[in-house]
Amino acid sequence: MLNIGIIGAGRIGKVHAESISRYVKDAKIKSIADPMMNETTEKWAKSLGVLEVYANYSKILDDKTIDAVLICSSTDTHSQISLEAIAKGKHVFCEKPIDHDIAKIKAVMTALKGSNIKYQVGFNRRFDHNFMAVKSAVESGKIGSLNILKITSRDPAPPPVSYIKVSGGIFLDMTIHDFDMVRYVSGAEAVEVYATGEALVDPAIGEAGDVDTAAIVIKLSDGSIALIDNCRRASYGYDQRVEAFGSLGQVAVSNDTASTAVLSTTDGVISEKPKYFFLERYTDAYVLEITSFIDAIINNKKVMVDVVDGLKPVLIGLAAKTSLAENRPVKLSEIEKLYNL
Amino acid sequence: MLNIGIIGAGRIGKVHAESISRYVKDAKIKSIADPMMNETTEKWAKSLGVLEVYANYSKILDDKTIDAVLICSSTDTHSQISLEAIAKGKHVFCEKPIDHDIAKIKAVMTALKGSNIKYQVGFNRRFDHNFMAVKSAVESGKIGSLNILKITSRDPAPPPVSYIKVSGGIFLDMTIHDFDMVRYVSGAEAVEVYATGEALVDPAIGEAGDVDTAAIVIKLSDGSIALIDNCRRASYGYDQRVEAFGSLGQVAVSNDTASTAVLSTTDGVISEKPKYFFLERYTDAYVLEITSFIDAIINNKKVMVDVVDGLKPVLIGLAAKTSLAENRPVKLSEIEKLYNL
Amino acid sequence: MLNIGIIGAGRIGKVHAESISRYVKDAKIKSIADPMMNETTEKWAKSLGVLEVYANYSKILDDKTIDAVLICSSTDTHSQISLEAIAKGKHVFCEKPIDHDIAKIKAVMTALKGSNIKYQVGFNRRFDHNFMAVKSAVESGKIGSLNILKITSRDPAPPPVSYIKVSGGIFLDMTIHDFDMVRYVSGAEAVEVYATGEALVDPAIGEAGDVDTAAIVIKLSDGSIALIDNCRRASYGYDQRVEAFGSLGQVAVSNDTASTAVLSTTDGVISEKPKYFFLERYTDAYVLEITSFIDAIINNKKVMVDVVDGLKPVLIGLAAKTSLAENRPVKLSEIEKLYNL
Amino acid sequence: MLNIGIIGAGRIGKVHAESISRYVKDAKIKSIADPMMNETTEKWAKSLGVLEVYANYSKILDDKTIDAVLICSSTDTHSQISLEAIAKGKHVFCEKPIDHDIAKIKAVMTALKGSNIKYQVGFNRRFDHNFMAVKSAVESGKIGSLNILKITSRDPAPPPVSYIKVSGGIFLDMTIHDFDMVRYVSGAEAVEVYATGEALVDPAIGEAGDVDTAAIVIKLSDGSIALIDNCRRASYGYDQRVEAFGSLGQVAVSNDTASTAVLSTTDGVISEKPKYFFLERYTDAYVLEITSFIDAIINNKKVMVDVVDGLKPVLIGLAAKTSLAENRPVKLSEIEKLYNL
Repeated sequence: MLNIGIIGAGRIGKVHAESISRYVKDAKIKSIADPMMNETTEKWAKSLGVLEVYANYSKILDDKTIDAVLICSSTDTHSQISLEAIAKGKHVFCEKPIDHDIAKIKAVMTALKGSNIKYQVGFNRRFDHNFMAVKSAVESGKIGSLNILKITSRDPAPPPVSYIKVSGGIFLDMTIHDFDMVRYVSGAEAVEVYATGEALVDPAIGEAGDVDTAAIVIKLSDGSIALIDNCRRASYGYDQRVEAFGSLGQVAVSNDTASTAVLSTTDGVISEKPKYFFLERYTDAYVLEITSFIDAIINNKKVMVDVVDGLKPVLIGLAAKTSLAENRPVKLSEIEKLYNL
Repeated sequence: MLNIGIIGAGRIGKVHAESISRYVKDAKIKSIADPMMNETTEKWAKSLGVLEVYANYSKILDDKTIDAVLICSSTDTHSQISLEAIAKGKHVFCEKPIDHDIAKIKAVMTALKGSNIKYQVGFNRRFDHNFMAVKSAVESGKIGSLNILKITSRDPAPPPVSYIKVSGGIFLDMTIHDFDMVRYVSGAEAVEVYATGEALVDPAIGEAGDVDTAAIVIKLSDGSIALIDNCRRASYGYDQRVEAFGSLGQVAVSNDTASTAVLSTTDGVISEKPKYFFLERYTDAYVLEITSFIDAIINNKKVMVDVVDGLKPVLIGLAAKTSLAENRPVKLSEIEKLYNL
Repeated sequence: MLNIGIIGAGRIGKVHAESISRYVKDAKIKSIADPMMNETTEKWAKSLGVLEVYANYSKILDDKTIDAVLICSSTDTHSQISLEAIAKGKHVFCEKPIDHDIAKIKAVMTALKGSNIKYQVGFNRRFDHNFMAVKSAVESGKIGSLNILKITSRDPAPPPVSYIKVSGGIFLDMTIHDFDMVRYVSGAEAVEVYATGEALVDPAIGEAGDVDTAAIVIKLSDGSIALIDNCRRASYGYDQRVEAFGSLGQVAVSNDTASTAVLSTTDGVISEKPKYFFLERYTDAYVLEITSFIDAIINNKKVMVDVVDGLKPVLIGLAAKTSLAENRPVKLSEIEKLYNL
Repeated sequence: MLNIGIIGAGRIGKVHAESISRYVKDAKIKSIADPMMNETTEKWAKSLGVLEVYANYSKILDDKTIDAVLICSSTDTHSQISLEAIAKGKHVFCEKPIDHDIAKIKAVMTALKGSNIKYQVGFNRRFDHNFMAVKSAVESGKIGSLNILKITSRDPAPPPVSYIKVSGGIFLDMTIHDFDMVRYVSGAEAVEVYATGEALVDPAIGEAGDVDTAAIVIKLSDGSIALIDNCRRASYGYDQRVEAFGSLGQVAVSNDTASTAVLSTTDGVISEKPKYFFLERYTDAYVLEITSFIDAIINNKKVMVDVVDGLKPVLIGLAAKTSLAENRPVKLSEIEKLYNL
């Protein structure tokens, strides 16, 4: 029986806690820490059978019976807590991104070197039933060799401008999932990135120095080309589609809906909108993600999303930022050189 | 070069005339007759290069250079004109139904016996791209042996009650197409019919002694079962679907639309309604139907819908009427015996 | 905190046990009884935190701390255990059907009279996201008044003939769910039933006195007409569709699939097959069903599927059996009179 | 009655000739010229009622009774024949492109200045039912202001390498249609183009100096962004899709199929492939295109695709070629300056 500690009891920390308590028989959540720990959270934790709640996460790291920690705290603390947890010999599940600062990710990579620690990064979309179906079709050779990979990724509504200011920008905050998806589906590495964008949804986003609508083209190491389009607001809901086209055919996935109902009236033939919110859309993916992490520990398997998978999308994001700023395609090698990678 | 005469220049007569003039190089329309022949119709006929227009159809039958006639006049004249045309040795395309009176259909059958006359009945749906796809899938064995055949057939709006009073009732006027479709798709014969219905669309239809909403179950000679549902009014348009289910699978066809456009907004994901009107839906089927008839004449092939195909759906319709009236399943053999068939 | 006892630890008993332990915070499974209780089942029960396991279900009924029981034993024991549980004042969730013998259902109804016992019958499809969407569209008036209700219900593969012999026949074993669906969606009662069928899947089913392919037409109390088609084997999986057509439009639901993936190759444009197995298809419905039962107890609400809802589909099933045997439409009133209802 | 002359009796000349003879009552094809005029073509022309056939197109231009000419000859002759036809006062329908040489297009523009000549360019996709539905949804404001426009355009199979060598390259030969579609749907002008590509289908195409797989991003004058992806070979057929996303929603069109048939078997749920060949897909669009041209002449309307619409996609194509060659985004103003536009 694995003992788990959860650091950060916000929205995503709660999702993982409930997934483990419902679906993982070989692990129990022993403790949960959150700097804002309060009565409500404590009550919720108790209802899951959690024994200890703390404000200070060090209590969890100091607990020798804890086998693994889930880092679900704010982004700016991910790399520091990762380093401390690794130093204490804990397995780590770290929400994405590890950091936007490449140096800090490198420090985590260095710390992991030579250890037997399982370190998984929270790119949850790799565990989505639809995207797994695309990956599987590509990997099985059903579409032949990949030529074109298209990703549509649009949020139902933009976050507050205050968040956008500290988020690292659309490419590091939102598109980063799509950069991971490109690597996941293609099995290839990004070689060069061209990115462009505009603030079409909200001028305040433009004033904050970011764009809210973007197009990105990535040349991949296998010669194939990826196209991504993003928008911070899709009136009809969370739009998450992937299409992989190759020498023998194409596999495409569309959105999930709450039901298959189709209403035909004088107004038209009306189906349901995509699920609106990412927690709805990725409910099952979150369960699979966390059970996969625990399975990797218990059965000593490779994690499905390792520290390098955590690093690469950040590099692509930095290339995209440079491309947008300087209006030119940017090679990944240029970014890697900057950081001595 | 075949010379064609068209008897009846109403809606469907015009459709066939235009199809021939556009698509059939080996036939020309020499003459058109209509009791209401007027200037507008004459002008239209001239625009197609038709040489002669008459009020009296006998002029066409008396013309020895005419090879084939299309009987597009009112239903009550079909069998009589058929007999006259056969007597004159003309090939005949007769709009459906030949008649509602079995004795009159038998007279046409008798007249045809031993002749080389091509006699085709106007069950246009056999030439629809969707229904041909179903037929082809069934015939090819792709769904194995047929178990269940389902037909949905709903009109966008009911005809005037005055028409319903003389139409022979829903089973002989509307469902007759579906009875033909059952025979066409299954390749089997009806053995027993159960029919029920209600006047749910318009009580005046009920007062006229008919129903406007119906369900029919037919047991077929190959052991399979057909289910038909009808309604005189579907708010969203002309609803024409067929689904054939067998030991190895199912083939189903849905409606045609004017475009593949899908609009996603806060209101939902909205596709186009089915084509509203039967002439829109079956535009291409009408062309194929009439070119098939002319091809049968020129190349001495069997017609695709012969006089027996014209008779059988009327028999099924009479069985359905009896079933509704007497609230019991009715064997086709019972109806056949009534008419010494 | 409600104490639950589960009687019968077969497939469906296990499903309910896991649903409660995962999703219901206000109830705990105290004990589980199964005549075949063994080490494996005991181990599984312990893993859910169940305190007591028995071979004899009376132990559960005798336990005064038990508030509610789930009767998941074999069909022939449902009514007897129901009576005993009611006598002990337990709330009851009883898997469908209560019995095929109307007298036994009546005994349960009598026992419930005047009590405050919540008695819910296991028609799980009422909790399916798709069928709830149909029900909701009908109830909201979006399709106007109901004219035609169509249900397609086909199993992926037939049960063993040995089971068919004791199942009560296709109408009481399989179509019974569709009879419930007709009542659920329409909100109306069956008035008359016509049923026909054949043994097309397996002649041994015919030899056992049953059919494996069936069509049923039901006239409803609101004048609308329901059509059901069944087959014991659909090569492509579990086919569960409903279509409700009314004066203002239609709502239809199709099958669920494991993903939205569409593969386009030289072979065609290929989507996923329906989920193959009922436990896969109705996973979420089972959770909702059992949480709804517990919610009814805790919050003193009406159960969503009461004892009358358990009775009516059996009556329709008996009418269908009579109809098939005597080849005539059968009025529900005829069956009711037989049983003094 | 308009007299039409057709110059070039290849595949597309024949399509237009048949469309006019079938569907246009106010125009007749008086003469057809083709340098390869032979017996087969003559016979075909006679069957359409064409009076004169020539090897030399000047005969048509010299005929004072000819009102309009259709230039369907090889691309390198388009601009020269256009100039001669304009000089003779004929209305002109010119197949796309007018030329790849901007100077030659400018000469045509100059020749047209001040005249009343109708000059339409053959961008047939503007007359496709699907793309018109997208345009109409955008123009009506249903999707709000345009943010992202996505075009997928893939041919079923590449042309011979010999053709590719003289075609002007993928951007001027194939993507040119998509550049036109961007302008048509958005109603905006291209401002900057980024293009990349690879020879993934056939290395011989790469050796010929071209790519066969491409991605293009275009910034438009209204701030929106267009993404195009192309491939010379899609195993499953001719793939022509457009998706327009805006502040209020999205409109998307998928491919046309020969029927709506869906086959469900143990192999999956299989729909039809897209229509394979552009003449199949755009059958109706070609009719609409040519009737629209004749309508513009007869009713003195603006043509739907004028000479500027013929010029602009070539400019975008040249920008794309420069972008690919120099691996940088290229402003349209840079290309325009080159040609003093």
